[in-house]
Amino acid sequence: MEVMNFLNEITSRHPEAISFGPGRPYEGLFEVERIGEYLDTYVRHLSDDLGRTRDEVRTLLFQYGRTNGHIHELVARTLVNDEGIRADPESVVVTVGCQEGMLIALRALFARPSDVLLVPSPCYIGITGAARLLDIETVPVPEGEDGIDPEALRSTVTALRRAGKRARALYVVPDFSNPTGTCMTVPARRRLLELADVEDLLILEDNPYGFFTRTGTRRPTLKALDCLRRVIYLGSFAKTCFPGARVGYVVADQQVRMPDGRRTLLAEELSKVKSMVTVNTPALSQAVIGGMLITHDYGLRKANKAATDFYRENLTTLLDCLDRLLPPDRREAAGIHWNAPEGGFFLTLTLPVPADNALLEVSARDHGVIWTPMSYFYPDGGGRHQMRLSLSYLTPDQVTEGASRLVSLLERSCA
Amino acid sequence: MEVMNFLNEITSRHPEAISFGPGRPYEGLFEVERIGEYLDTYVRHLSDDLGRTRDEVRTLLFQYGRTNGHIHELVARTLVNDEGIRADPESVVVTVGCQEGMLIALRALFARPSDVLLVPSPCYIGITGAARLLDIETVPVPEGEDGIDPEALRSTVTALRRAGKRARALYVVPDFSNPTGTCMTVPARRRLLELADVEDLLILEDNPYGFFTRTGTRRPTLKALDCLRRVIYLGSFAKTCFPGARVGYVVADQQVRMPDGRRTLLAEELSKVKSMVTVNTPALSQAVIGGMLITHDYGLRKANKAATDFYRENLTTLLDCLDRLLPPDRREAAGIHWNAPEGGFFLTLTLPVPADNALLEVSARDHGVIWTPMSYFYPDGGGRHQMRLSLSYLTPDQVTEGASRLVSLLERSCA
Repeated sequence: MEVMNFLNEITSRHPEAISFGPGRPYEGLFEVERIGEYLDTYVRHLSDDLGRTRDEVRTLLFQYGRTNGHIHELVARTLVNDEGIRADPESVVVTVGCQEGMLIALRALFARPSDVLLVPSPCYIGITGAARLLDIETVPVPEGEDGIDPEALRSTVTALRRAGKRARALYVVPDFSNPTGTCMTVPARRRLLELADVEDLLILEDNPYGFFTRTGTRRPTLKALDCLRRVIYLGSFAKTCFPGARVGYVVADQQVRMPDGRRTLLAEELSKVKSMVTVNTPALSQAVIGGMLITHDYGLRKANKAATDFYRENLTTLLDCLDRLLPPDRREAAGIHWNAPEGGFFLTLTLPVPADNALLEVSARDHGVIWTPMSYFYPDGGGRHQMRLSLSYLTPDQVTEGASRLVSLLERSCA
Repeated sequence: MEVMNFLNEITSRHPEAISFGPGRPYEGLFEVERIGEYLDTYVRHLSDDLGRTRDEVRTLLFQYGRTNGHIHELVARTLVNDEGIRADPESVVVTVGCQEGMLIALRALFARPSDVLLVPSPCYIGITGAARLLDIETVPVPEGEDGIDPEALRSTVTALRRAGKRARALYVVPDFSNPTGTCMTVPARRRLLELADVEDLLILEDNPYGFFTRTGTRRPTLKALDCLRRVIYLGSFAKTCFPGARVGYVVADQQVRMPDGRRTLLAEELSKVKSMVTVNTPALSQAVIGGMLITHDYGLRKANKAATDFYRENLTTLLDCLDRLLPPDRREAAGIHWNAPEGGFFLTLTLPVPADNALLEVSARDHGVIWTPMSYFYPDGGGRHQMRLSLSYLTPDQVTEGASRLVSLLERSCA
């Protein structure tokens, strides 16, 4: 978080700079007017489809509610349509954004001091922050061009075991990860699930960007491939609906044994933790998201076509601009390269000089362009020569102009 | 939590029983229709009073937001009017209900393993649960008829110091506490603040019930009396607005020193923790509560007149019924007594036989009345002969009928 302050501070000092910094979704597609419609749709669903009385609807909207939420059945229905994930609604925990989902999952799963959480390196700071809040040790697993490498994972697990520690779970964003934009191949996904079973490892799969493919290729989520209940699925509506609702969910369909010997769903254990974090997810937020799911016939893919097209155009535009302004021979000579993510919000650019706060300062002041030093996302150091470029919060015109400013920085700094 | 399951389970097996169990607010005063009005009022405030553009309003409602919330200024204004608490809006952290406020305050304050949290005994389970989630040790301080006794507190702090531990903070509900209904006298409040200063102790003041006086007597909150910034005030809109919004707040106006030596507000430290728990409080929930504050001219006391009257009537009715059905000579002979709280949702009844799950089972099955064993609220055992009676979720007629059923149980069991 401390490091992010520099980014915020430099952004406020250079308001005219084009920023490849924020990973927030584009907001041009949000419509304030529709909030009331979604709410009405959900209330109609309660009364017309579920036969709830006026008093029951009032209770549901105003009163304390079920800890694991009241739109869990709608979420489960949507998951089948969008991801082919078949989850018992009782295994769905509706959370205050995916962040609360990560926190309560970690708290429920990590009991012993020798338990460690494996994270990709570089890694999304929300999960490392949640682990730090709970004093859970994280151990990085290096990421390759296609994301987490199952064999690197295996050697990390083995080394930990030799050191008397237990790799309890791995956090992973298989589709268009934040911060790098990498995507795991299908064989790697299958291999990861195999390994999880052999090594008795749980997988926390986080999937905020899966919808937003550039190439049209769609890969199955780990959870959809998971026959052995190794995967706890962390869902988010922040990018597919809107972030301000703060509605996410966890699919926790594992059977766990309680202290008294009875077996129960992991979702029930998460419920106990959640009741001590936020009691329950705000009813209005759930109602608005519920209304959106109903409106879109329990499938958000079609509803996200405009958003998907928008992010695709931005990513394509950036790749095209960079390629045009720094053709292969020039960039190879300069020692500059970047990945070509198949989707998502992020791209990684590597340069021969440190992409640090000092270069960011020059970039903002002299070239009018902002980006995030990749080193911010390395739990144990690394990424010194890389920057994360985020595409989600700009228009295609801004991307074009931003790319040109970026190349002017690169030409000056890497000459 | 485990123990609460028995209460839920017995309630579902005896749906016809009158339940003095739930501490939730009465919902007959909620109006679904007004949600849209409050939202509109808040949006008009943003545009007309604060000059926000349509795009800015859209961003505020839909996008990720300020970690510490966007209604902090409205909350600070309301606090002056309702409680005489003057808080810099920057010291107000808007949270997902008071529960998140407790969790993040504990996480920010407790750094060393030797730090302990003092709690009244008996105690609200939300705070002990949050402490358990964070592996923070709690130490009970016995409560007298007027709540926490400052001298008992002092000897506890001294004993802890001798044992090499530090009492970092005390959690307390000075007004009409849950579960006992006790209220601290003003001299005890002043003495508590003095002690906090002498013993270098912080106070977490939780005040969900302060509005709801039976006798009309209104005492200053600890925070209003706090000249030395010893008090962290935990606010809730669950009872004064509605629980489903899940909006609470923390006033954390203490100066703290950061690792780099700079001084900052404790609210800033809470912000770092909150960003790893829920990122920010849902915008819609904040907007609806913000609209309510504006509608009621930044003061919730008048707006809560009907609720205050309602709870007063319930509490008065229960006290009158018990007194009529078990006059002083009869109850003294039977070894039964109860307190007469000056307000709030709860009353404590003491009986000569154990008020345990077995008696609760008989009570529900044979007498059609449910209550909460007080032992549920004792962190270290105790309260075996007491029950908590909650008044908030019944009508006066139900209270009357419930009191008569309760007395039939008492006459049968304590004979």
